[in-house]
Amino acid sequence: MRMYDLIMKKRNGAALDAEEIDYMIREYTADKIPDYQMAAMMMAVYFRGMTKEETAALTMAMAHSGDMLDLSAVEGVKADKHSTGGVGDKTSIALMPMVAACGLKIAKMSGRGLGHTGGTIDKLESFPGFSTGISTAQFMEQVNRIGISIMGQTLSLAPADKKLYALRDVTATVDNLSLIASSIMSKKLASGADAIVLDVKTGSGAFMKKEEDAFALAREMVMLGNHAGRKTIAVVTDMDQPLGLAVGNALEVKEAIETLRGNGPEDFLTLCMTLGTQMLLAGGKAETEAQAEAMLRKVIEDGSALRKLAQFVEAQGGDAAAVYDTSLLPQAEIVEEVYAREEGCLTRMVCDEIGTCALMLGGGRETKDSEIDLSVGIVLHKKVGDYVKKGDALAAIYANDAGKLAAARERFLKACYFGEKAPDAGKFIKGIVR
Amino acid sequence: MRMYDLIMKKRNGAALDAEEIDYMIREYTADKIPDYQMAAMMMAVYFRGMTKEETAALTMAMAHSGDMLDLSAVEGVKADKHSTGGVGDKTSIALMPMVAACGLKIAKMSGRGLGHTGGTIDKLESFPGFSTGISTAQFMEQVNRIGISIMGQTLSLAPADKKLYALRDVTATVDNLSLIASSIMSKKLASGADAIVLDVKTGSGAFMKKEEDAFALAREMVMLGNHAGRKTIAVVTDMDQPLGLAVGNALEVKEAIETLRGNGPEDFLTLCMTLGTQMLLAGGKAETEAQAEAMLRKVIEDGSALRKLAQFVEAQGGDAAAVYDTSLLPQAEIVEEVYAREEGCLTRMVCDEIGTCALMLGGGRETKDSEIDLSVGIVLHKKVGDYVKKGDALAAIYANDAGKLAAARERFLKACYFGEKAPDAGKFIKGIVR
Repeated sequence: MRMYDLIMKKRNGAALDAEEIDYMIREYTADKIPDYQMAAMMMAVYFRGMTKEETAALTMAMAHSGDMLDLSAVEGVKADKHSTGGVGDKTSIALMPMVAACGLKIAKMSGRGLGHTGGTIDKLESFPGFSTGISTAQFMEQVNRIGISIMGQTLSLAPADKKLYALRDVTATVDNLSLIASSIMSKKLASGADAIVLDVKTGSGAFMKKEEDAFALAREMVMLGNHAGRKTIAVVTDMDQPLGLAVGNALEVKEAIETLRGNGPEDFLTLCMTLGTQMLLAGGKAETEAQAEAMLRKVIEDGSALRKLAQFVEAQGGDAAAVYDTSLLPQAEIVEEVYAREEGCLTRMVCDEIGTCALMLGGGRETKDSEIDLSVGIVLHKKVGDYVKKGDALAAIYANDAGKLAAARERFLKACYFGEKAPDAGKFIKGIVR
Repeated sequence: MRMYDLIMKKRNGAALDAEEIDYMIREYTADKIPDYQMAAMMMAVYFRGMTKEETAALTMAMAHSGDMLDLSAVEGVKADKHSTGGVGDKTSIALMPMVAACGLKIAKMSGRGLGHTGGTIDKLESFPGFSTGISTAQFMEQVNRIGISIMGQTLSLAPADKKLYALRDVTATVDNLSLIASSIMSKKLASGADAIVLDVKTGSGAFMKKEEDAFALAREMVMLGNHAGRKTIAVVTDMDQPLGLAVGNALEVKEAIETLRGNGPEDFLTLCMTLGTQMLLAGGKAETEAQAEAMLRKVIEDGSALRKLAQFVEAQGGDAAAVYDTSLLPQAEIVEEVYAREEGCLTRMVCDEIGTCALMLGGGRETKDSEIDLSVGIVLHKKVGDYVKKGDALAAIYANDAGKLAAARERFLKACYFGEKAPDAGKFIKGIVR
């Protein structure tokens, strides 16, 4: 088999068979196929697409390119959740304890973030001492004991995906549905969970700007998960403005804690309830949506979800006291309100720009080696649809540098658009794909 | 400017401007753009195509990527000829002396061959001592003095094309009209001739199998040449069976000599006359086709073309006596006839297969470092349309190894197809593009 022939075949519009895709991924991972041939292949895939069979074969080949985590030593159904990412997305921090408190086992592998604010692991490191650098044995013991654990993605998890994504990133071949879906799902499959719930974001702040594209990605990933024998459900949700009110690592952790105390912002609570419901259904812990929702409400009301978070933080070396006293989380030195300079209805908050404000304050990574300032960020007081008078506080900015704060304030104000009337409020939950 | 953005732009269907193409070629030649990005770009070009403006900019950028040969020290119009290649194509060896004998200056850069038989330089090395490793000064002095010289392509001639072609060759991005045209023309432009006549082959033995594709390539190259201020004419000619009768380096040289003596095969003579006519017209040595043809007939009849070949061979260190006594050319040890095993009309001779026979005998290069046996090859006795009885000699095989000869004989016979009646003879000269 020769890579040249495979490029030609794909270029000419034919489908590669599973054996060909296995060969390509195996040899590429082993550095036996050069980057330039794979780059040509990826561009041919961009133009020709891949069939469902090809996408499934690619996903399986990438999942098996490194270690497949074997969670069989953990009793019961193991669930995982993945989000395609957005601004203010602190979902896992509230959702995982909620679901675990309902008795579903949560064994999650997660990554660090690039851009905007950090990833779930970065956010959790707001708890002093928290670590995800644990062994697989420790990871599984913890899931068995307290029902929840999170581990950093190891280098040996789907290395083919890692290598291929890095190449696609510099050759303008990222935005192809089959490639995006197989990249996400190969890691999820290698992570070993039996039930996978996917949060596919859509809107101006999401990778998938158009709702139809988000649904297409959701369908593709659900197909891939089910094809691999994992119970997979996708929820398509709004990312046209930041999720909840807090943007910034420790600020988001605080918001997640508030949500577990029953004081969460409406959209964020809705998201946690919806994803949690699907996880409980996928994991066989509930028979109906109503039953699942009741279980989730109960663990918030009786404090067991909050206690599960504290137990989880403590198990991974973090200071659980911060769950009950959020002043123990990293605190910014300067907090300043941003006041509206005009009157009107907030018609639009440009998600990516608000994410960039947090990045400018030091809350995200510009390159993969950047240090993150966990304390900084923005807390919104107003969201799209709210009516604002001149001088009203739109948001509070948390910073450790007055210059950065001033720059972030101007950028934030430019990201807010005002008009005469509120835009039509679309549904926050766009739909569920199973 | 970033290569990533250029890939994205082309991928999305926009045209690159001249500045962007210059940047891309300059940085790629300097190894500052990695192969994987260029491979993605080439595949995007394969799918999106290039406008005439883009193709012209690419051609100029590649032509200027190394040294541009300055032929201004040579008086008068300098002409060059290029063939897209085929089996038995010894055209330059007869054509160049014919045209030079008519007073047009021939300053040609040429390459070695890969596959089939050798290139023009390999064939000319059948004259013992002949060398193309001459300095640019010597090259120009010789053109001034005797009106004809040939020089090997230097490494500094269009290095961007060399690098880009090698990449396209391994990434399935060769067969795009704009890329083929710009590759050929960048080298022709860098070689410095004022008048360029292109022989674009079509048919089963040519790179362009379909006549319409050959005409499209011809039009593209003529556009590129004229755009660069060079008088450019293309002739589209048949390559559905080998050109002339001889296939193999020294055998082809002998056929070229016979042609200059007035004893050439009809198709080959027609080709030399047609290309020569266009060269004399392009170079301003004749006003009409009739006048040009008369000039060319005269230099054959009065022996001046043959003498010009001898003068040319001698000037480049070769044994000119071989022009008058072809037994001084390399001779194969074994010569055997191939007899027909069936009766009928020859309906097809598969060009590439006959080329492969010559390669198997040792007459071509399998890799770029292979040594060529100049003496071996095939001389056809019959061509398509001829009626053959069982036992008639179809061809003679010239070999230095009985085993290779036997293998070549079987392959040759499989390349000949017989039927009841002769196929419709298409025109040998398909058309002229100017």
